[in-house]
Amino acid sequence: MTDIRPLLDRFRAGQRAALARALSMAEDRRAGTDELLAALHPATGRARRIGLTGPPGAGKSTITTRLARHYREAGLRVGIVAVDPTSPFTGGALLGDRVRMESVALDEGVFIRSMATRGSLGGLAATTRELCDVFDAFGMDRILVETVGVGQSELEIARTADQSVVVLVPESGDSIQAMKAGLMEIADVFVVNKADRTGADRVKHDIEAMLGLRAGLAAHAEPAHHGVDLKRIGNPSRAARKATAEALETGGPWVPPVLLTTGTTGDGLDALAGAVDRHFAYLETHGGLRERRLARVRQRVVDVVEDRVRRRLWLDGATNAWLDAQVEPIATGATTPFAVADALLARSGDLITGKRA
Amino acid sequence: MTDIRPLLDRFRAGQRAALARALSMAEDRRAGTDELLAALHPATGRARRIGLTGPPGAGKSTITTRLARHYREAGLRVGIVAVDPTSPFTGGALLGDRVRMESVALDEGVFIRSMATRGSLGGLAATTRELCDVFDAFGMDRILVETVGVGQSELEIARTADQSVVVLVPESGDSIQAMKAGLMEIADVFVVNKADRTGADRVKHDIEAMLGLRAGLAAHAEPAHHGVDLKRIGNPSRAARKATAEALETGGPWVPPVLLTTGTTGDGLDALAGAVDRHFAYLETHGGLRERRLARVRQRVVDVVEDRVRRRLWLDGATNAWLDAQVEPIATGATTPFAVADALLARSGDLITGKRA
Repeated sequence: MTDIRPLLDRFRAGQRAALARALSMAEDRRAGTDELLAALHPATGRARRIGLTGPPGAGKSTITTRLARHYREAGLRVGIVAVDPTSPFTGGALLGDRVRMESVALDEGVFIRSMATRGSLGGLAATTRELCDVFDAFGMDRILVETVGVGQSELEIARTADQSVVVLVPESGDSIQAMKAGLMEIADVFVVNKADRTGADRVKHDIEAMLGLRAGLAAHAEPAHHGVDLKRIGNPSRAARKATAEALETGGPWVPPVLLTTGTTGDGLDALAGAVDRHFAYLETHGGLRERRLARVRQRVVDVVEDRVRRRLWLDGATNAWLDAQVEPIATGATTPFAVADALLARSGDLITGKRA
Repeated sequence: MTDIRPLLDRFRAGQRAALARALSMAEDRRAGTDELLAALHPATGRARRIGLTGPPGAGKSTITTRLARHYREAGLRVGIVAVDPTSPFTGGALLGDRVRMESVALDEGVFIRSMATRGSLGGLAATTRELCDVFDAFGMDRILVETVGVGQSELEIARTADQSVVVLVPESGDSIQAMKAGLMEIADVFVVNKADRTGADRVKHDIEAMLGLRAGLAAHAEPAHHGVDLKRIGNPSRAARKATAEALETGGPWVPPVLLTTGTTGDGLDALAGAVDRHFAYLETHGGLRERRLARVRQRVVDVVEDRVRRRLWLDGATNAWLDAQVEPIATGATTPFAVADALLARSGDLITGKRA
């Protein structure tokens, strides 16, 4: 067994190299990972985990970088997990993002880990949860989880955070219908980035309409803007401000605000940080935070259980050899996937439960 | 136990209502599903399964509909599985697609099943494989699997087919870098749809450059076109035709052709069907087909095993109650997700192996 004590000592002493090593261990699930994470577990639970998700090209990395700077100015320490589920090799466009992000990486109070692994046995959402745990145990105050894309796996990754920011751009209009259900479910705060482009107000209006905000607050409704009003960048509409204020006071349902930002200039970023803070206060006051965190803890156990079952079965030489011999009989119709699955489980009890290695 | 024999009799007699019922059973994993699929299993293996994937708005439904018509004209029977992993409620834009698709649904030789389930215990890719098995056993000659999106889960769904067509549009240019790795891995044929729009040739050129086609065939290279050349719609470049011809003759690696289509007019669709046929011939001649199908059979067993483990554990009342009681101690740091996972597995051997229900 790998002796993790030297690493743990250096990690607890706050050494960045030990943090890097611990993150790599967890990402690659090297020998000793479970022991390491178990040892770090009691030190977790202090960081606020903020997910940022949205389509490619929405400017998530710029927003992430700006948010990190904002938190640094408040004296907070920031960990960033950048997940790129669609690409095992960070390509041209994304590399540019990473380089931009390096501007904050020179800051001792910020640590960035890009994760581009695919097809991991444990799943990206599970690994993301673990990297966040490592950052949390290291003493980071804010953990930003950035995911590219809005597919099912990306939404699952976003769900690993306490709060989720969905970043769109004026050009996202056409995709909103397609993304609707998933986004509605996870978004605590919406951002329309690149708000200096045509159509930002329209997208903001569309999202608010989908949220039922304009319908529900018809009395306070403002006329719809179809051009871009730069003065309103980062400035929630009166109706939206009123809705969040009411939610905070009365414990009514949280209505995700829709903010306009321009990541490249920083316009609207303070307002975004403010909205994220207000949402966190809402979660703390009305109990949603505790529920989200307990649900995450429960999901961690489910992840670990399923991960162990998969590893114990599919990394076992004898099981694989046995299964290989069944493939041809299934293909010819002599047996079925179900009969083989039953037989496989029947012979694997001790392997799965850990009684036999 | 559900008696599936009456359903099986009607299914084998070719009744469409029985096909619909069998598909619903498999999709919802109702009682009797495993028995049904096991009974149908020997009748599978005849259909060709063709995946179509790409970003929202690329015109996949139109292409799917056109391909279905093409196969019908050749007297073939067609099953369509339309998977929409991001949306549990088919929204406005997608509904339009479905309505367009209904034009072929009136044909007795075509059967369409839309699947919008999310978060299913078994996973969408596994369920897609099963719906295809049902269509296959019913005697469909071609099964078209259409997925919205290009995230990790969508790529997994695409991988359930024998062959994969990736549909892009001229506007996809910016996203190609981000999607690069995943698409490269699954695409057997590329389509740039809506080729009457500006930029189609540029996207085609970019894809071919990424494929190394232009680099590898520099001697045959044509000048890059940056405008749209309508004459070339559906007409692979000379270099691409030469590459596929060579691949067929010599058994060299398959180079995915990049075709231009206009789904709304049907331009390029016959060429697409031809390219799909050539790729299938390549797979048959050079053994890739057998490997893909055996790999799918093996994955079916893995799916069924993991599905059973998950169902047996997470749908078990006693296990859930036990786990619920561990969440608080984990949150307070009194124990860890790993210790709880180990304890859970240790007590669940008979449950997982099926000895205890």
